[in-house]
Amino acid sequence: MLKGQRKKDPGEAELLRWIAARTRLDPARFPIGPGDDAALVNAPQRRLVVTVDTIAEGVDFKLESATAHQVGRKAVAVCLSDLAAMGAEPLCLVASAVLTRGLGGSFVKGLYKGMESAAARFDCPLVGGDLTSWAGDVVITVTALGTPVAAKAVTRSGARAGDAVFVTGSLGGSIRGKHLRFVPRLAESAWLVERFAPTAMIDISDGLGVDAGHIASESGCRICIEAARVPVSRAAHQMAAEGGACALTRAVGDGEDFELLFTLPTIKADKCIRCWPFKTRLSLVGEAVEGEGAVLRHADGKEEPIDSEGYQHF
Amino acid sequence: MLKGQRKKDPGEAELLRWIAARTRLDPARFPIGPGDDAALVNAPQRRLVVTVDTIAEGVDFKLESATAHQVGRKAVAVCLSDLAAMGAEPLCLVASAVLTRGLGGSFVKGLYKGMESAAARFDCPLVGGDLTSWAGDVVITVTALGTPVAAKAVTRSGARAGDAVFVTGSLGGSIRGKHLRFVPRLAESAWLVERFAPTAMIDISDGLGVDAGHIASESGCRICIEAARVPVSRAAHQMAAEGGACALTRAVGDGEDFELLFTLPTIKADKCIRCWPFKTRLSLVGEAVEGEGAVLRHADGKEEPIDSEGYQHF
Repeated sequence: MLKGQRKKDPGEAELLRWIAARTRLDPARFPIGPGDDAALVNAPQRRLVVTVDTIAEGVDFKLESATAHQVGRKAVAVCLSDLAAMGAEPLCLVASAVLTRGLGGSFVKGLYKGMESAAARFDCPLVGGDLTSWAGDVVITVTALGTPVAAKAVTRSGARAGDAVFVTGSLGGSIRGKHLRFVPRLAESAWLVERFAPTAMIDISDGLGVDAGHIASESGCRICIEAARVPVSRAAHQMAAEGGACALTRAVGDGEDFELLFTLPTIKADKCIRCWPFKTRLSLVGEAVEGEGAVLRHADGKEEPIDSEGYQHF
Repeated sequence: MLKGQRKKDPGEAELLRWIAARTRLDPARFPIGPGDDAALVNAPQRRLVVTVDTIAEGVDFKLESATAHQVGRKAVAVCLSDLAAMGAEPLCLVASAVLTRGLGGSFVKGLYKGMESAAARFDCPLVGGDLTSWAGDVVITVTALGTPVAAKAVTRSGARAGDAVFVTGSLGGSIRGKHLRFVPRLAESAWLVERFAPTAMIDISDGLGVDAGHIASESGCRICIEAARVPVSRAAHQMAAEGGACALTRAVGDGEDFELLFTLPTIKADKCIRCWPFKTRLSLVGEAVEGEGAVLRHADGKEEPIDSEGYQHF
């Protein structure tokens, strides 16, 4: 791969050569990289985690406010965040870029360098790709391959009544910049999986409430989040101060935080907090109980639905 | 995966449930399918072939002349054709669909059924995906995983002076319908790799001339195609009869035939032709010689460049 489709214009062929020339792959792990019909990968084991994510101009980024480098970086990071959510270690990536005709070589190079920087941090090289030019807006799709850190991958479906509910980082207002800058929580995920075997895990892409609802519905339990324990980001506070939704509403409802939301048997909760070795904040935000859906529990004991069913009214 | 990004509209969530409900995966091979952050795949071996292809509205298909089913089918077939070119057996797929807002559920269902039909034929299930709605045109990206049929994957770089050059099927005028209907040459590829170990192989997506040029440049030899031996398709003849480029020009220059172009040591050529068990046509079209580039050799002995350098003048 890493071929241009259809009749290539000379600029496109030159770009593909530029990308192929930059690519340095360990031949023992990646005997065939960009430049052929497909890549050949020697995986460390037969169990593979596979995920695909697309980011589209005007939906996930705007070219007025994001550089090509940031767009490339985000496209990779969003996908790696899914590997983190599964408790997987990254292996390699393939990417497709659909670019507006005339964007120019410097855009493609910036995009590629952004992808490369996000990928290199996690030793997860780009091994192939596809490049298309068209009249429409920019669309970037990244597929990531990984391998499970432990014997089992971590799903959304293993939470049980009695489990403690945790979240990494702080939430809300990601649109102020975090959505372009976040680091996928791969290190935190690997540590958690190796030492504490989370019963369920998800990365927060739709928002704390909706994603807690995903764990609830897949696990067959109810996720109660204590309003007072939700880690509200500075960006959410700032946006609230400027008017509009309150900071807590943003922390619960805003998407694209790409933090980990996970559950552990309560008996492990204290030790996890004590041993946590990362600068990344870790918050015990609630518990799984019998029932269904995700709710926010206020200080007065009142519960408010926050999953996708309840979200509209929040 | 198989999550909609950002805030889902209720229709999108319903579609994702429809897809998840249709999905029947062998849990021994695919312990986790659509519906989580990523899929989990038990590959038959650690060596993986990975390829990604995108098809975009207005570039690779037009919604006035192609059904949703055909678009889905093509998106998968184009990608599987790359696995065939590498001598790989399909394992599984992930897909991303970026859809024009308002296209409606029946479009998505048709698209999905088209993907499924192309995938099911080769026992290569869709294990995950991503769905995005936007104001722009339709973009479909498919990533295919496979495993090499033999000890080595077949690259573009192994052709040697003296090798015979073969092509499957007939060429040119794919735009008349074949580009939506072609069957990836996976069966032919597996047979060839197991019995005859092609020295180089590629699928014809850019056109016979340009793709022969890829083998030439990667292998460090010259590919000579005999004009009289090029298998010209009925569509190419029909289009020529209606005016414009002659049929041979179409057969050599048109893209998207998705046939196999491969090289074998000459000593194996006769036996390959004798043993060929498929209805698919097989043509010995030329030879690899010392030198560089791809050329079309006419009956009078004159040679004309047909690779991407020469193509403009053809």
